[in-house]
Amino acid sequence: MFQINENYQKLPGSYLFSSIAKKVDAYAKANPDKNIIRLGIGDVTQPLAPAVIEALHKAVDEMGKAETFHGYAPDLGYDFLRKAIVEHDYKARGCDISEDEVFVSDGAKSDSGNIQEIFGPDCKIAVCDPVYPVYVDSNVMAGRTGEYDAKSETWSNVIYMPCVAENNFVPEFPKETPDIIYLCLPNNPTGTTISKSQLQEWVDYAKKSGAVIIYDAAYEAYITEKDVPHSVYECPGARECAIEIRSFSKNAGFTGVRLGFTVVPKDLTCNGVSLRDMWARRHGTKFNGAPYIVQRAGEAVYSDAGRAQIKEQVAYYMKNASVIKQGLMDAGYTVFGGVNGPYIWLKTPNNMNSWEFFDYLLENANVVGTPGSGFGPSGEGYFRLSAFGSYENTVAALERIKKL
Amino acid sequence: MFQINENYQKLPGSYLFSSIAKKVDAYAKANPDKNIIRLGIGDVTQPLAPAVIEALHKAVDEMGKAETFHGYAPDLGYDFLRKAIVEHDYKARGCDISEDEVFVSDGAKSDSGNIQEIFGPDCKIAVCDPVYPVYVDSNVMAGRTGEYDAKSETWSNVIYMPCVAENNFVPEFPKETPDIIYLCLPNNPTGTTISKSQLQEWVDYAKKSGAVIIYDAAYEAYITEKDVPHSVYECPGARECAIEIRSFSKNAGFTGVRLGFTVVPKDLTCNGVSLRDMWARRHGTKFNGAPYIVQRAGEAVYSDAGRAQIKEQVAYYMKNASVIKQGLMDAGYTVFGGVNGPYIWLKTPNNMNSWEFFDYLLENANVVGTPGSGFGPSGEGYFRLSAFGSYENTVAALERIKKL
Repeated sequence: MFQINENYQKLPGSYLFSSIAKKVDAYAKANPDKNIIRLGIGDVTQPLAPAVIEALHKAVDEMGKAETFHGYAPDLGYDFLRKAIVEHDYKARGCDISEDEVFVSDGAKSDSGNIQEIFGPDCKIAVCDPVYPVYVDSNVMAGRTGEYDAKSETWSNVIYMPCVAENNFVPEFPKETPDIIYLCLPNNPTGTTISKSQLQEWVDYAKKSGAVIIYDAAYEAYITEKDVPHSVYECPGARECAIEIRSFSKNAGFTGVRLGFTVVPKDLTCNGVSLRDMWARRHGTKFNGAPYIVQRAGEAVYSDAGRAQIKEQVAYYMKNASVIKQGLMDAGYTVFGGVNGPYIWLKTPNNMNSWEFFDYLLENANVVGTPGSGFGPSGEGYFRLSAFGSYENTVAALERIKKL
Repeated sequence: MFQINENYQKLPGSYLFSSIAKKVDAYAKANPDKNIIRLGIGDVTQPLAPAVIEALHKAVDEMGKAETFHGYAPDLGYDFLRKAIVEHDYKARGCDISEDEVFVSDGAKSDSGNIQEIFGPDCKIAVCDPVYPVYVDSNVMAGRTGEYDAKSETWSNVIYMPCVAENNFVPEFPKETPDIIYLCLPNNPTGTTISKSQLQEWVDYAKKSGAVIIYDAAYEAYITEKDVPHSVYECPGARECAIEIRSFSKNAGFTGVRLGFTVVPKDLTCNGVSLRDMWARRHGTKFNGAPYIVQRAGEAVYSDAGRAQIKEQVAYYMKNASVIKQGLMDAGYTVFGGVNGPYIWLKTPNNMNSWEFFDYLLENANVVGTPGSGFGPSGEGYFRLSAFGSYENTVAALERIKKL
């Protein structure tokens, strides 16, 4: 008789955003007259940039003619896209990354869920707490996290690095040495980040302790302050200890287009085995490339027109971030984030817990946010609002919240 | 110090089609004057159907306007696509499959590589031999296959079901009871298939022995004979023991568009745990949907115009299959397949082994095929030619082969 992967049974509840979607759907069905504003899931709302639309149409036309039709893509992704990535995301920032270290994928969620596969079963992971739930959940599925304690909402074999108001949301080196350190910077959900010298300390720490950093830079386009690194490879030594995951979802509004990439430098090895070669094997065996038309759309993001248009989109969302931040402060909330990231992280009022505040906000303001506890135990008592709504909705949501 | 997944080190060489691509590239560079015809990898060459192109353009336009922009897709895929799938692929064939049992993905390769994740580490897999290499390779990565014996090119913990000329390429029930049975029908690479009553025997066998069938029906559109099942769910009992994987790559030429789906029926359980719910959890946690525009393209495949155009494409490739089959027979080869599948499977001449014949054909006819041994030990002494080239190239390739 076949057996299932028992680790799945350990997972409490469903994936965070699936749970929220179900809850909101139920409320909407029961209250069809309510105009719900969704600032929960970090999904963009602005249309794709004109340069991207143009590239998509052009690529679609190519797919309609035998002479220009494209079948299976090259394993690592098309050269034209990997060249643009290396040029603009790395060389322009002084990072030494070559095209054959870039792996184009269908998005950062897949990559951040799959990357753990190339590591051993006994590796111990460390995560910022709170953080994007995929890192922990994918390691639960792989059996690396030990047992779940429902009371503390923690896994026995996961090292949590609390990021709370008391430490300015900056993770501290854990007491126990981890094997894999997930860093999401700018952080989802807190919207906060760290300076270049702070990141350098993490790189030095990883090298010294034999750990690998999985650096999720999905939100780097939202950095506005000067001293904040956009890539882990801005720090010397990172080529020997860090993998970087990038997304087109947030900088270019590709949540429904699906495109991302992962960088695995050739200098990252374990007892002489190249992790870059392992990831290439995984990529070649269990994935078949992002669509040609989508890779062309990604290329357009790096064109002169694309870059200018994307910059405007980011500015649009960051204006929303200001609206949320200022509105919440006016209403007396304690707020964080929103300067180098598109998320506002707030302390729930009146000692409500995160899900209580979720219900309170949904029922009284018809505004959807994300309970902080969904991102980890240290997120309890916090709440995330996303800047990815439309400006009009964002303003309306804050008006409602102010009236509570 | 972090450790790697040591199972990767057991994998001999690189992924089959990556190896072939490298070999052909090297030959092409050394012989720039040669006109190489590629009938190796099963990549299509005909442009996307007009109905698909139209749907893509329309969806791209939608993505360019805020009112019709689409961000993250629903976890299982858009309703419009899952409805079309259920209607045309299942209800029309009398199969009882509901929309919430269909999981839209970025392709059958990802799904067939990832599906093993929901099973226990000690499950023993059985595979047709020869077969599409992803089933075994993905289980090697997961540590289920034991040790590799380079001499026999087999894994100690894999049950091989030889499919050779002597048994008409029909797998026989193995002596040892497997937990997971991979069936790829019509078979890649042999192009052969089995009758409905033969498939029913497999369903009955799986139910009796407590095994689950992973049924890869990527090539079902190429079935021309009446008694050959298109879906495993045509067989009573399959809802309790089978998962089906489908692709848009081969029926609609989506190799570069990336779309597929997997069906996990709610009746498939293990000690009361629903495998459908497990796959939903996996899908929701480690994947973020196929692009909206691609799902709209998939919907167009099922429109009246789309279905007519796709039928023509399939006929075009099956005409190539006839050209190859007849041409090889005229040249004195022993050939199989090409009737219910787009692949022709031939016995290599003069006791050449598969890779010897690969080199022979590449160097003397400048034609690329796929060595049978790359699909499993029983593929040794065989060779695969794909019908997915253009008609002109296919005719030219056969002219060259006849002249050898």
